Amino acid sequence: MALEDTALSEQDFLAALRGLSHRYWGAHPFHHRLHDGSLSEHELRMWAANRWYYQKMLPQKDAAIISNCPVPEIRRQWLDRIVYHDGRHEGDGGAEKWLRLCEAVGLHREEVLDERHLAPGVRFAVDAYVSFARTQPWVAAVASGLTEMFSGHLMRKRVSDMLAHYDWIRQDDLSYFTKRIDAVSGEGEATLDIVLRYSKTREQQQAAIDALSFKCDVLWSMLDAIERAGQKL
Amino acid sequence: MALEDTALSEQDFLAALRGLSHRYWGAHPFHHRLHDGSLSEHELRMWAANRWYYQKMLPQKDAAIISNCPVPEIRRQWLDRIVYHDGRHEGDGGAEKWLRLCEAVGLHREEVLDERHLAPGVRFAVDAYVSFARTQPWVAAVASGLTEMFSGHLMRKRVSDMLAHYDWIRQDDLSYFTKRIDAVSGEGEATLDIVLRYSKTREQQQAAIDALSFKCDVLWSMLDAIERAGQKL
Repeated sequence: MALEDTALSEQDFLAALRGLSHRYWGAHPFHHRLHDGSLSEHELRMWAANRWYYQKMLPQKDAAIISNCPVPEIRRQWLDRIVYHDGRHEGDGGAEKWLRLCEAVGLHREEVLDERHLAPGVRFAVDAYVSFARTQPWVAAVASGLTEMFSGHLMRKRVSDMLAHYDWIRQDDLSYFTKRIDAVSGEGEATLDIVLRYSKTREQQQAAIDALSFKCDVLWSMLDAIERAGQKL
Repeated sequence: MALEDTALSEQDFLAALRGLSHRYWGAHPFHHRLHDGSLSEHELRMWAANRWYYQKMLPQKDAAIISNCPVPEIRRQWLDRIVYHDGRHEGDGGAEKWLRLCEAVGLHREEVLDERHLAPGVRFAVDAYVSFARTQPWVAAVASGLTEMFSGHLMRKRVSDMLAHYDWIRQDDLSYFTKRIDAVSGEGEATLDIVLRYSKTREQQQAAIDALSFKCDVLWSMLDAIERAGQKL
């Protein structure tokens, strides 16, 4: 029987996607240390400076999805993500909020923007993600964003844990996360809805599962490289 | 002396760009016939149905530019183009206005959307344009949009000429053009401003000139193919 004939039920497809949650970077040892307060100030800075590159590239990743998507309705919906990260005006948006977090942990804006602390492994992982969005079918690229299903819980925990353990960090410094928690409060429901609607055959479902698995690898690799960068002084 | 050392003055650079105006599709024989009222109804339909493919792909072309552009300010500015064509809601936007024009010249919406009338040469030209935006440096892709410098005059003339010569076409049917005239009323000034700002070396200037020349070829080829499609019944 061809793969197309044996599509998973929606329930099984969902279970396969959700079953990847243990590979989400919430489980990475570095994130555990971030949350339990055992990172050094240097490690915290390397984390913020390196993750900047990921934040910075998100609008370009999202535009690649729009560029590949022939469905106006989805394009209209996805456009909000670019606006979310870039903001409507200078000094607005998620990227700016990340820069403020960088400053809160003791980095100068210039040393973040000039990427002097950027670990090659982080750059490779993020570039792989952008390249995936540019070259893969748009539904797979959308599916790679399903890590949102796992991120709401992690970010809520992050805000309380970081405030509890790093006493020089104020609630305001974490506005990237508090704002983002609202944005993903549906636990990726809108994204999931698109993936379910456009993944009907077994092959399409597998492509979505593979895409989410790939994205987990991207995020995990970033933290591997960030962990190593934090060990160097 | 290396090319970089001999950058054109802004005036000469502008003159080189404007000097391509005779290659703009305003000069194509098919457009002359469109304007003087000598197209048959069939030719008019083939024109509208084929150009639909160009209109339809514009948001994906513009998203490719955003995907390749590392400058948030430019991305924010360029985003408006996607919104312009896709609209904020279903039934809104430039693409929808083009479909209404198709209906006004006697086509059913389905025969436009299923692309049954689409000439291969039109598809190839438009796909080349989208591919250019995806694969070339973003400034070159922006420069390819400088045909806007030439389009305002042509569109104003089109509205009056079409209303004068095709008596079954009403002003409302041409809202794509009347709305677009407003959008390009600055004669491509905002686009030109970006190109001037980011084309400082002779090589960058030449890339911009080449991009505009390429775009003229794209549009001209479309009309060549449309002209031939209109001759067949």
